[in-house]
Parts: sequence; structure tokens; C-alpha cells
Amino acid sequence: MSPSPAPTAPRPPLRVALAGIGVVGGGVVRLLETNRDLIARRAGRPIEIVAVSARDRHKDRGIDLSPYRWEDDMGALVAADDVDVVVEMVGGADGPALTLARQTLAAGKALVTANKAMLAHHGLSLAQLAEEKDTPLKYEAAVAGGIPVIKAIREGASANAIARVYGILNGTCNYILTLMEREGASFADALTAAQAEGYAEADPSFDVDGIDAAHKLSILAALCFGTKLDIDTVATTGIRNLIAADIREAEALGHRVRLIGMAERDASGLYQKVQPCLVPADHPLAYVPGALNAVVAEGNFVGRLFFEGAGAGAGPTASAIVADIIDIARDEYGPAFAMPVEALDQAPAADAGARVGKHYVRLVVEDRIGVLAEIATAMRDAGVSIESFIQRGDEEGGGVVIALVTHEGPARAIDAALDTLAASDHVVGAPMHMPILAL
Amino acid sequence: MSPSPAPTAPRPPLRVALAGIGVVGGGVVRLLETNRDLIARRAGRPIEIVAVSARDRHKDRGIDLSPYRWEDDMGALVAADDVDVVVEMVGGADGPALTLARQTLAAGKALVTANKAMLAHHGLSLAQLAEEKDTPLKYEAAVAGGIPVIKAIREGASANAIARVYGILNGTCNYILTLMEREGASFADALTAAQAEGYAEADPSFDVDGIDAAHKLSILAALCFGTKLDIDTVATTGIRNLIAADIREAEALGHRVRLIGMAERDASGLYQKVQPCLVPADHPLAYVPGALNAVVAEGNFVGRLFFEGAGAGAGPTASAIVADIIDIARDEYGPAFAMPVEALDQAPAADAGARVGKHYVRLVVEDRIGVLAEIATAMRDAGVSIESFIQRGDEEGGGVVIALVTHEGPARAIDAALDTLAASDHVVGAPMHMPILAL
Repeated sequence: MSPSPAPTAPRPPLRVALAGIGVVGGGVVRLLETNRDLIARRAGRPIEIVAVSARDRHKDRGIDLSPYRWEDDMGALVAADDVDVVVEMVGGADGPALTLARQTLAAGKALVTANKAMLAHHGLSLAQLAEEKDTPLKYEAAVAGGIPVIKAIREGASANAIARVYGILNGTCNYILTLMEREGASFADALTAAQAEGYAEADPSFDVDGIDAAHKLSILAALCFGTKLDIDTVATTGIRNLIAADIREAEALGHRVRLIGMAERDASGLYQKVQPCLVPADHPLAYVPGALNAVVAEGNFVGRLFFEGAGAGAGPTASAIVADIIDIARDEYGPAFAMPVEALDQAPAADAGARVGKHYVRLVVEDRIGVLAEIATAMRDAGVSIESFIQRGDEEGGGVVIALVTHEGPARAIDAALDTLAASDHVVGAPMHMPILAL
Repeated sequence: MSPSPAPTAPRPPLRVALAGIGVVGGGVVRLLETNRDLIARRAGRPIEIVAVSARDRHKDRGIDLSPYRWEDDMGALVAADDVDVVVEMVGGADGPALTLARQTLAAGKALVTANKAMLAHHGLSLAQLAEEKDTPLKYEAAVAGGIPVIKAIREGASANAIARVYGILNGTCNYILTLMEREGASFADALTAAQAEGYAEADPSFDVDGIDAAHKLSILAALCFGTKLDIDTVATTGIRNLIAADIREAEALGHRVRLIGMAERDASGLYQKVQPCLVPADHPLAYVPGALNAVVAEGNFVGRLFFEGAGAGAGPTASAIVADIIDIARDEYGPAFAMPVEALDQAPAADAGARVGKHYVRLVVEDRIGVLAEIATAMRDAGVSIESFIQRGDEEGGGVVIALVTHEGPARAIDAALDTLAASDHVVGAPMHMPILAL
């Protein structure tokens, strides 16, 4: 037998600086303290916080930051000789977060960030900079919180051509939809409840209008399809226009309503869309409750992979951030988007109108003679074939609710029919339509 | 701005040899051919099969192996100068697979294996050898097929102390249970159907007796808890003793029956058990249908992570094997069980009898006076408190079916009561009990 090799010298600690100590930053501090020994065993070296920076030194954060050097100026974290990794938890697509990220990478230090807005808008240039400096850019926490979905796709599914990636990427919306489902609540009431329980912000637009999900989707799409990040072509419809009847009718049809971000690369280009969808009851996304997130990736060899977990919160987000730090400690990292930026394709936006599927359509109409004929005519003229039609006489949103399900057809035909109907004097408010998720 | 660094030289191809070309081996060949260019972009270098070896050169495998050098002797794959990675798909805990694995690592070459039996029995010594030689030992395909759960736990959840890991680790059993559920079939009929459809082997014992799941569980436990692999202390109960009434009663109680492998490290030691359980309808494991696998890991910061996908089959298994190869191509690998073997704890087996929970108990009894009193007395004498008791008069298995659910109590009390009842002349066959999965 060959003799054992001489024991290698223990590796020096990995030295981390935290920028922005809010809820997530506090979680990272607590995690690194609580699981300190375990992490050192797994990482092969200790991970030490050496410095922290935030706006207000004297704010009560419920954690003791006194063991760590305080810097009023975040730039000092980058400049410090004893910092190997900067964790950006400042937030915002531009401004101080972006400046810090660029400084960190330019200095050849590792950057860990949870900032999906910054990545969606500047991920490519940051990845380019990281490559030039041969330094890690890691962002597990930016998509689906604690679920290690970036790793699962970047590495776990790396052998596959991915056909589609989609999921529930915003916990606030899913919480609201679950409330509407369980309690028959209106959107407004469910939003108010979500705000009272801390699941939605005072200004909820970032979440309920689908912007946050769009940021995450653009990151997933780049990773799955080897395309350049393109947030500008993500079409986004939020959940504000849902009414209680939509949830009820979906249920009657054997479906649940979920805000789904979906990306697919088809012959025409890259399709990226965030919108409420009807999810069939035999799809696992139909069972994702409350503020959880879930992501589905469909690979050409592995088939359908499904990942579910907490999409936000101090603990889960800290878990993802520290997983990134451990990867860095292990020297297990590579190009941010799985391949060098120059190897990423520039894909045009797909022709979304040509996508074929079944749709749920809901209109609120005045209860008068001729309205049904008007709807049927608009559908026929646009070439939309109707599979089922439901008018229960339910009143909501200032009129009578009519719901229908179309046969398979191009999205463009639905849009044309709804444009016609939206202009009708007998239709109240904006028509709603949701694709039915194809299995 | 700093100038771009000089372009680095392209990395040489990673050269792979395949040992054992059955269904999975064929899948690996097809995958590496089909996704060749994509994989090269993601891996940063081409991945090339250079040699293959299997028992019968002339067997029709439906794939063209002529581009690859054939070796009758697997050992030649290890000896060849042009092989960097050996993929072991021979199977079996010992024998030729183990010899090949040891030779590969001893030669300082990378080993990729899907062989859970070999890892469960020899994983520690193989990991030790890999460390001594500083060469990768990767085994994503050994647990839960295409689901990248080894990576998700080893790296994605690496920041967490894991409280419990559990899941559906055998697709054959889940397929049978799903058939019993959907069609009210007996175990025997469902097994026959599964065999006819290729989901179960002619000799199904390895799957239906829980041995395969036990192998996988022992690997997950080592990875989650930083303990030395210990297959010998995995207690295993398969699904043979389930009757149709069990599935029906579980459903009536709002549960589904699943074969669950669960590991937990408690104060007394390491608990590892494979057994049928009642899974509550609001747990995602209740919705895992057919031959799918699913794994749950509960981390102290991330909370509950849930992963689902195909647990077997050529495509999914090849996906996992090639993901390992891509990691090796990227030089992203570390100790097989997340930390060096010498850092793994030797945990004693936990006191399984002390575990507290609710149980489902089912007996088949002779329909005569006094049987109920006998059951109630045995339960009382053992200190088991009964929450609900069901006797619908259904006959199955040569008698009348009685099902009951206990209040929370130690497993040891249930065992004692059932030992008493098993000895009764009025109880037909072995009593069945299943823990109710606690959320």
C-alpha cells in the first residue's frame, strides 16, 4: 500500500465582510455564529466575519455586532487587506450596491449577493468583471431564497438541455393567492392581511406586479439556456386584476391560480413571461402553499425536476448566502452563469403571440341581452375556439362574471379577442386571461 | 480600466471510460453525444468517451459503440494513459465493481459511480482512498436518480445543521403504492402490474423489502449529519405486508401511505429507518406519484427543502452521472462526504424505541366476541393510548380488518402491544403498524 501523504497544512480562515445589516444581514451573522464549527468542518477552513458596514451604527438589530470591525464607509470593506469576500446585502439595482459590487470584483475579491434587481440589470457586466479578475461572483440567495436552485441548475442539471424553466418565484404573491383560495377573499382583502402579517410591503407593487419575479426569471433563463441576461424582454403581468371568482372558477376547473414565471427557448427566440396561470391539480406547483417558492426545470435527459422551499426570510436567505461563502472557501466556483459571458448567446425575444395553449378568460359584464353574443362573436372573429363557458350569475367587480376556457390556440388570437371586448361598453373593467399550464 | 487578461489556453478534453454498458451506460453514451456541445460550453472543456468495457461485446444495445475503444478487461480502463475518469456502472456491493473502484482511486483517477450498494458498504474506505490520492469520488446518481440531491445537501444546504432528512427513495415501491391507492389493488396485484410494466424486477425483494432505500438513506445520513456511513444500523421494513385496507384507511384519515427512509440525529445517536409511513395530505411527499423520488431536508436556518424528480431510468441516471463528470471537468469537487473521513463522527445507533409519535396500527382478526377487548387490553397494558378506532367490518387477509390510531407515545410501547397481539390466536397474520409522519 502507498503511504498516506503528509498531512496538508490547515487552510487559513476565509475572511468575510458584510455590507448592509438588515433582516438578512442579521441572519447571516446569526448563522455564521450558530453553525460555526459545523461550517468549518464542511468548508475545510473557518469562515470569519471580520468587518461589517451599514447605514446606522446605532440601530438596534437584536444582534451583537461588537466582535466585528465597523466601517461607516462600505468602500473600506473592499479596501481592507483582511477581507477575502464581500457580501452585498444593500439592495437596489444601482447606486451604492452596484458601486460596491464593482469595487469588490475590480479589487479581485469574491462577491456574494442576494440582489436580484442588480443582477437582472447588471449581471452580465458584473460576471464579465468577475471573469477578468478571476474571482467568484455568487448569488444563490437572489433566486428562490433558501432553495439551492442556482446550484441545482448550474451544476445539478448541467448535463441537460433545459426545455423550460418555470416556477413560483414570489412568496408574497403566493401567500396572497393562497389566502384568496382558502378564504374566498378578494385581492384587496388578501393583500391587506398579507401586509398585516408582514408578508407584503406597505408599497406592494414590486411583488404583486411581478417585477421581483421577473428579475429572478431573467437570471434563471440565462443560466438554463446559456443566453445573455435580458430583463427588458420579460413580459410581466401581476396579480392585481384577479378577483375572487377567478380563484373559484379555477378550482371548479380542477386548477389553482399561481403567479408563474416561465422561460423557454423556442425556435423564434427566448420567451420570458411572468403572469398568473392556471396550474392543473396534478402538477406539484398546485400544492405550493403560502409564502413558499418552487422551481421546475425540464431537462432533455433528467425530465422534470421540482424544488420547493422558503423563498425569503432571514434564515433561508442567510442559508443561501453562506452556502455561496462555503463554495468560495472550498474553491468550488466557476463562471457566474455557468459559462463565460462571451460563450452566452444573444437570443432575440420569442414571438410570444405564436405560443399555442389553452387559456382561461374571465370578463365582468353588464347583465343585459346581447352580451353573450358579443363575446362569442369577438372570439369567433379572432379565431378563438371555446371549450367551455361558465356563467353562474355571480356578481363581482361591478357586473356579472363570465368565465370561459378556450381550446388550444395562439396567444395572439386571445389578445385580439380581448382587445375587442375591452373596448365594449358592456364589459366592465379589464378582461382577465390566464394560460393553463401545459404539463 | 484594467486591460483584459491574456486569454487562457483552452483546457484539454476530459477523457472518460465507461465500465458496464447496460441501460444506464447506454444513457450516458447517448447523453454525452446528444448534448456534446452544450456540455463543453458548460464544463469549459470537451468531455470525451475514450473507452468502454462490458461483459458482452456483441450484445445489441441499440447504440453504436464503435467510436470508442473496447476493453474486455475493465482493469485496462484504469491502466490506460488516456483515461482521466472511470464511470463504474457494473453494480453490486462487492466483486468486480469494488475492485474497479479501488483500482481507479488507487491510480489517482476520478471515480464516478451510481452504485449505492457499494457506497453503503464500502463508501468510507473508498472516500478515504480518494482523499489519500487527492482524486474525486462522485456519486450523485446513487441517491434519488436524476434529482441532484447529493449536491443540494452537500453544497446547497451546507450552511445548515440538518435536523432530519427523509424521503421517497425507491421508485418501485412508490409505483406500487400509487397503484394500490388509485385502483384499490392488493400488494400482490400491484406488484404484478409493476413487473409487467418494467417498474419492478422479477425478484423484487431488493426494492419492496426496502434494502435499496436503506442503501440510499445511509448515504444521505452520512452527508447530512457528518457521521460515518453505517448501513448496518438502518432498520428496514418493506411494503409486502400492506393490504388494500391500509391504503383505504390511511386515505380516510387524510393521509397517504409512502415508503419513507428517514434519518435523524438525536441525543441518543443516529436514527436510520426505512418503513411505510402515513404522510399527511398537507405534506408534499403525499403528492409524489408513480415512480418518482423525493427528498426532504430540514435545516436549522433554511427550513424545509423539498426535491422531486425521476429516481431511476436511463436518462435521469445519466443526467446525474454526467453532472458529476462536469463537476470534475470544472475542478469543482471536494471530499466525498462533504468533509474528510477523519472529520466524520462515529455516531451510535439511536434508541429507536424511545422515539415518540403517533402510529397507525392495523390488525386482521377473527370475527368473534372478545377480540376487541383483547386488543384494547394489550394496548392498555403496553401503555398505548388510542386516539381512534375503526372497524368497518371489511374482510381482507383472512379476517376482519381493525385499524386504529394511537396518541403520541414511544415506539417501544407499540412494539410491545403488537408482540402481545401477534401471539394471540385471534389475530391473523402479522399486525401492521406505521408511524404517522410528523410535520
